[in-house]
Amino acid sequence: MRIALLGGTGDIGEGLALRFARDTDHEILVGSRDPEKARDAVEAYVTELDDRGVEADVKGFGNEMATDRADVAVLSVPPYYAGDTVEAVEDVLDAETILVTPAVGMNGDEDGMHYHPPSAGSVSELVAARAPDEVPVVGAYHNLAAGKLADLDVEFDLDTLVVGDDADAKRTVLDLSNEIAGLRALDAGPLANAAEVESVTPLVINIAKYNDDLHDVGVKWV
Amino acid sequence: MRIALLGGTGDIGEGLALRFARDTDHEILVGSRDPEKARDAVEAYVTELDDRGVEADVKGFGNEMATDRADVAVLSVPPYYAGDTVEAVEDVLDAETILVTPAVGMNGDEDGMHYHPPSAGSVSELVAARAPDEVPVVGAYHNLAAGKLADLDVEFDLDTLVVGDDADAKRTVLDLSNEIAGLRALDAGPLANAAEVESVTPLVINIAKYNDDLHDVGVKWV
Repeated sequence: MRIALLGGTGDIGEGLALRFARDTDHEILVGSRDPEKARDAVEAYVTELDDRGVEADVKGFGNEMATDRADVAVLSVPPYYAGDTVEAVEDVLDAETILVTPAVGMNGDEDGMHYHPPSAGSVSELVAARAPDEVPVVGAYHNLAAGKLADLDVEFDLDTLVVGDDADAKRTVLDLSNEIAGLRALDAGPLANAAEVESVTPLVINIAKYNDDLHDVGVKWV
Repeated sequence: MRIALLGGTGDIGEGLALRFARDTDHEILVGSRDPEKARDAVEAYVTELDDRGVEADVKGFGNEMATDRADVAVLSVPPYYAGDTVEAVEDVLDAETILVTPAVGMNGDEDGMHYHPPSAGSVSELVAARAPDEVPVVGAYHNLAAGKLADLDVEFDLDTLVVGDDADAKRTVLDLSNEIAGLRALDAGPLANAAEVESVTPLVINIAKYNDDLHDVGVKWV
């Protein structure tokens, strides 16, 4: 399978690229608005993987070309770019490309982070509204701390929640996610349930803020 | 310490009464709008604890009398009764009584449960708004599945999140909660952070709905 990480030079994109490359046999396509930036990032990722004895299939492209080649395209961009990124690649999206969205709308104040969804109800539903109708949209990877994700020395024992309205696409993302070592993917229902999933992200940041012995907090559902 | 469970004949109240009675040396006051109902519930709780060899200090009262005697009063009532229950006991609330709120506003549809906070932002903040100003309000126990909580055969390995604006009161509730075997209480900040804590409750219900091997889902922050 070909997995594109759009905005794959950012922290979530980096972590997913490294872990998919290390733990699976899939082809990894790192996308960026600037293809040169994507290729620079890939060079660093390949060096890091090579240092760990992993020969990985990772390449860099512009976001549109990465999407065009992908079976699964992850929108690993900040929430306020999610809609625009969908529009930038919509000509190459179709029913055969699963669009995965991990972004979460938040704002912060002195108390901590607060969930701040777009008017669509959640970023996942915003992405679904902005994508062409036939494109299956799946929410996943919202609650993985970027710091842990991108540090391959950290062994995972974490869950990620997956939401989506297309059962086959959701199954594909659940199975794909379970291929990452130490990651368990759980179904949290349709996109209508995305807000409760997304709102865990400010919460894990708050838990890290108020508990000195917890950093880069993740979650296990037990 | 004296711990009152207002609405202590309901499922969350039952579970907290049984576990506080079994695992701590505190005096447990089960409250109900109807004192007779509270005493009947206490009889059942004492029998269950006795069957397990636990001699517990549990008594039944009307909610107002239970609150009057309590150091910590837990509003273990449905969310739509939380404000009214505060008003029913406000004459006996003061700065020396910590008011603990575990309730969460939700509504459900065919997709699952959805977080539906009151206009105050969260039930925790609603309780703080309805309580006399000097009463310290703390949110806790939102994300404990009632079924697991009330089944003393279930050994806990769960977290609960605690929010509050009064540092001493929050510390008391954190320490008290950590006395329940297998329960770890974590600070999630001030009451302004309650919404993200409360919204985990519909989420754990959704996770149970969509994953056949998970029931009465709880959470560990890792």
